[in-house]
Amino acid sequence: MTTDPPELTRRPGGRTARVRAQVLDAVRAELGEHGYEGLTMETVAARAGVHRATVYRRWKDVGGLLADVMQAAGEGDWQPADTGSLHGDLTALNEEIQDSLVAQPSFATALMAASFRSAQAADAQRKLWEGRYEQCEILVVRAVERGDLPPRTDARRLLIAATAPLYHQLVLLRTAPDPQLPAHAATTAVLAATAGAFTRSATDGGS
Amino acid sequence: MTTDPPELTRRPGGRTARVRAQVLDAVRAELGEHGYEGLTMETVAARAGVHRATVYRRWKDVGGLLADVMQAAGEGDWQPADTGSLHGDLTALNEEIQDSLVAQPSFATALMAASFRSAQAADAQRKLWEGRYEQCEILVVRAVERGDLPPRTDARRLLIAATAPLYHQLVLLRTAPDPQLPAHAATTAVLAATAGAFTRSATDGGS
Repeated sequence: MTTDPPELTRRPGGRTARVRAQVLDAVRAELGEHGYEGLTMETVAARAGVHRATVYRRWKDVGGLLADVMQAAGEGDWQPADTGSLHGDLTALNEEIQDSLVAQPSFATALMAASFRSAQAADAQRKLWEGRYEQCEILVVRAVERGDLPPRTDARRLLIAATAPLYHQLVLLRTAPDPQLPAHAATTAVLAATAGAFTRSATDGGS
Repeated sequence: MTTDPPELTRRPGGRTARVRAQVLDAVRAELGEHGYEGLTMETVAARAGVHRATVYRRWKDVGGLLADVMQAAGEGDWQPADTGSLHGDLTALNEEIQDSLVAQPSFATALMAASFRSAQAADAQRKLWEGRYEQCEILVVRAVERGDLPPRTDARRLLIAATAPLYHQLVLLRTAPDPQLPAHAATTAVLAATAGAFTRSATDGGS
């Protein structure tokens, strides 16, 4: 039995936080060594040195584990890049997405695989991406403020148009990563946005 | 033992074709009743009244079965709609895609799920979509001929930009189907294309 290190005992949830860190480290290691198909609740619990029952109670299934790994990765101070132009910002975002999808192992891809098999993983994935798109809306706000985009530009639709081709090519069509794709997809979205593709009409209601 | 009906015995492969039809019917029925997670080689073989060994030999895994169902669905005379405008053609294509993804059961979604677990399914899915995008390139050729798009427009990139948001929203973000989405995504692609987003430079080489 070890005692909690001071930085954990000082706040409530120290033991819970430590168990979580051990389990998520084990998920990362197991996914790296055995891939998504080899990831099981049992091997994660064994590697983490945590009771199986605890892992099942808290994370329910492999989808829950992967969702929490992604969640933990987003708990830092992630901010989308501010490059001074919408095209630059979207290109930087797309480069991050491309990196996350071609990483070995790719947690993003594993979570997608899990989302087809676990309602919990599907829900976690939806919330995670919802959160990321919300964090990225500032890109569009800045572009409107600079006068680069029409006011009333729908940030969400623009962001989906800018990023969807990457997921489509890399995850669904499984093409090799194309170093030009992040910038190409950004160009498409910027040209469409400038031409008013994502502009809400004045009668659309405020949202 | 029944004898092959005349339309099957008249050509070679009649028995093979009949076994395939029985097996694919069983896949459709099993997927409809039990969903992707309930689909197994064993229950398909039993329902089709075909030896398990035959099913394993010919289709290898569940991914192979789903790929062949999709393949069979595309063996008719499918052609993209010719509505007289690129926007109309892309909207019609997107409506077909949306229908295929929200269908219960959705073979397209089941094949995607399988593609994360079976290299065979992943390969079949890639080839299937490659084929569909090829069949759709005519939409772009017609638009260039009408003078609605710049010559040297990259048909594949335009088609991916037009269709990717549907897969992204319906499969990955799992939003409810939006009746406006097929036309919205078509508008985005047309505006971007008109602004030159998919125009290859003269030095890109011919392809």
